[in-house]
Amino acid sequence: MTKDNRLGWLSASAKELNLQSQSDAQSRQMQLTKPPGSLGRLEQIAVRLAAMQGKDQPSAEQVHISIFAADHGIAAEGVSAFPQEVTGAMIANFANGGAAISVLARVLHAELEVIDVGSANDPGLLPSVRSQRIAAGTANFSIEAAMSSEQLADALLAGREAVERAQQRGTEIYIGGEMGIANTTSATAIAAALLDIDPVELAGPGTGLGSEGISHKVEVIKKSLKLHQQSLADPLEVLRCVGGFELAALTGAYIRAAQLGIPVVVDGFICSAAALAAIRIEASVANWLILSHASAEPGHAAIVNALGDRPLIDLGMRLGEGSGAATIIPLLRMACQLHNGMATFAEAGVADGS
Amino acid sequence: MTKDNRLGWLSASAKELNLQSQSDAQSRQMQLTKPPGSLGRLEQIAVRLAAMQGKDQPSAEQVHISIFAADHGIAAEGVSAFPQEVTGAMIANFANGGAAISVLARVLHAELEVIDVGSANDPGLLPSVRSQRIAAGTANFSIEAAMSSEQLADALLAGREAVERAQQRGTEIYIGGEMGIANTTSATAIAAALLDIDPVELAGPGTGLGSEGISHKVEVIKKSLKLHQQSLADPLEVLRCVGGFELAALTGAYIRAAQLGIPVVVDGFICSAAALAAIRIEASVANWLILSHASAEPGHAAIVNALGDRPLIDLGMRLGEGSGAATIIPLLRMACQLHNGMATFAEAGVADGS
Repeated sequence: MTKDNRLGWLSASAKELNLQSQSDAQSRQMQLTKPPGSLGRLEQIAVRLAAMQGKDQPSAEQVHISIFAADHGIAAEGVSAFPQEVTGAMIANFANGGAAISVLARVLHAELEVIDVGSANDPGLLPSVRSQRIAAGTANFSIEAAMSSEQLADALLAGREAVERAQQRGTEIYIGGEMGIANTTSATAIAAALLDIDPVELAGPGTGLGSEGISHKVEVIKKSLKLHQQSLADPLEVLRCVGGFELAALTGAYIRAAQLGIPVVVDGFICSAAALAAIRIEASVANWLILSHASAEPGHAAIVNALGDRPLIDLGMRLGEGSGAATIIPLLRMACQLHNGMATFAEAGVADGS
Repeated sequence: MTKDNRLGWLSASAKELNLQSQSDAQSRQMQLTKPPGSLGRLEQIAVRLAAMQGKDQPSAEQVHISIFAADHGIAAEGVSAFPQEVTGAMIANFANGGAAISVLARVLHAELEVIDVGSANDPGLLPSVRSQRIAAGTANFSIEAAMSSEQLADALLAGREAVERAQQRGTEIYIGGEMGIANTTSATAIAAALLDIDPVELAGPGTGLGSEGISHKVEVIKKSLKLHQQSLADPLEVLRCVGGFELAALTGAYIRAAQLGIPVVVDGFICSAAALAAIRIEASVANWLILSHASAEPGHAAIVNALGDRPLIDLGMRLGEGSGAATIIPLLRMACQLHNGMATFAEAGVADGS
């Protein structure tokens, strides 16, 4: 298959971290009125954001959330507890403010944009939903490639464009989220291919499969990976053969955010699979990814390992929609506010224990 | 030693949880537009707060933080990395807004009150600091009891009064915090006595001891527990013999909050030792304690086990001041807002997968 010539942008390196800001932030942490290291990972987060944002006073106030929604032909194989029409219905629920991520975005004063990159049932015109439909869902990847090269390029670009819109608005933290019935099957197939792990090690209940359902899901993924085995050495081909429009959009978004120097907070299982594809396409993207939460989906730990970071929290969440990523935003904000707002030992006239 | 007759209030039971609200909240969670259970512990927190607050729509907006500060005679044994005058200096830092908890309280729009129950150096009149000094620090408990029965009663009452002030202001969530050089030594001694565990299993670096310092701390605690061994069967006597004014105030605060039906968020190692004393005095207090974070102090896990709950987060924090408890407030708020604000399947017209 000839690659679409609109993929060239993917190979540009991520922006470099600002090591001076990192070092200054580290020094400042040592001078604040607390035993060194006693704020634990809140200190590390502040220092990391300082390095990413290239400033002494990092900030996580301006948050942009893009939810990419799409359907999956693989749903025809009976791999999800929910029917496919839920994807379109949930797009409407996002727009109407009733979904978990809608509530979280309001609470966080974050911008929330929903991008329909290919739901099976077109929800039509809705406020704050962008219709950028590539097709009415991917093809059934247990029979054929999920998408064409042109469709893959379109999906990656949809992610790139979302990040560029976010940048225009001064976004300090970017969150990608997803909605798509059967997309844990696609994410599991991507991760199994990229990590060369048996799908049985990665597959989980998704929205609520029982053990029989999970076994069936594993068989479907195994069969699909066998069908596409000639294509699995190239991460872009993995996305094309067993990915989804929303997954490819997330991969494109993560790569673009890293190129533009916008810190990314990665949600759970599905977003982590897209992030894994991103770092396999361009390794330097990893510097820009903050892992939010340990998903209850059992395969998440293996993907997290490959991403080389530790999620900040583990609340047993497994909803998607960017909800786990949104949940850590107050922790990032507190990390920044402590870093920026605490007194130093000298300012407070407190003995520093040295 | 005759007990002070002002201790009778401690034996009143905690308020009962509202099981109808709990059941209603659980039902509502099952109807929200998400796979059941997919918000993990955020669902459990919302249901638990509903049971505590006896209402369908729990809330964690009104937060009151009391920081109890005091010094410890045991500091004379060289068990802390910081000098004793830091306690008074930090009280001033709280008042001036430069401490970690000052920053967090501002961010959370929480009420912050500092109660000096006995620092070695009186910091004098300071805004938002309440001077309720019992003595200029406890006695050295490796030689004699840390305090008299009258002093213990005063400290417990200081905690009670702080909670009653918070209740007057409509507090929905109560946080107790502490500051006191050498208070991990006191907390470790309390926990070792109440759990009947060798102090070597519980003692840690506190504000920054090395391994030699920790060994010395263990020896000091062992010697002290031996001195007071006749008194360790009674949790109030444990507090009196090896406790501290701020630790006893926290114990009193937790018991009073449970009696009044105000949910308590417990901070890390030191607050957990005070909470352990509280549930040993009156077991029903446990229903009202929400454990915030797993402290980096190694002995915390054993205390947490005895409290019968799991902390919500683990960020490697070990600062005290109520900082870990404050850090989870946004998570409680999001749990409530999701519970109250998400659409049900029926409202959103989304198929519920059943």
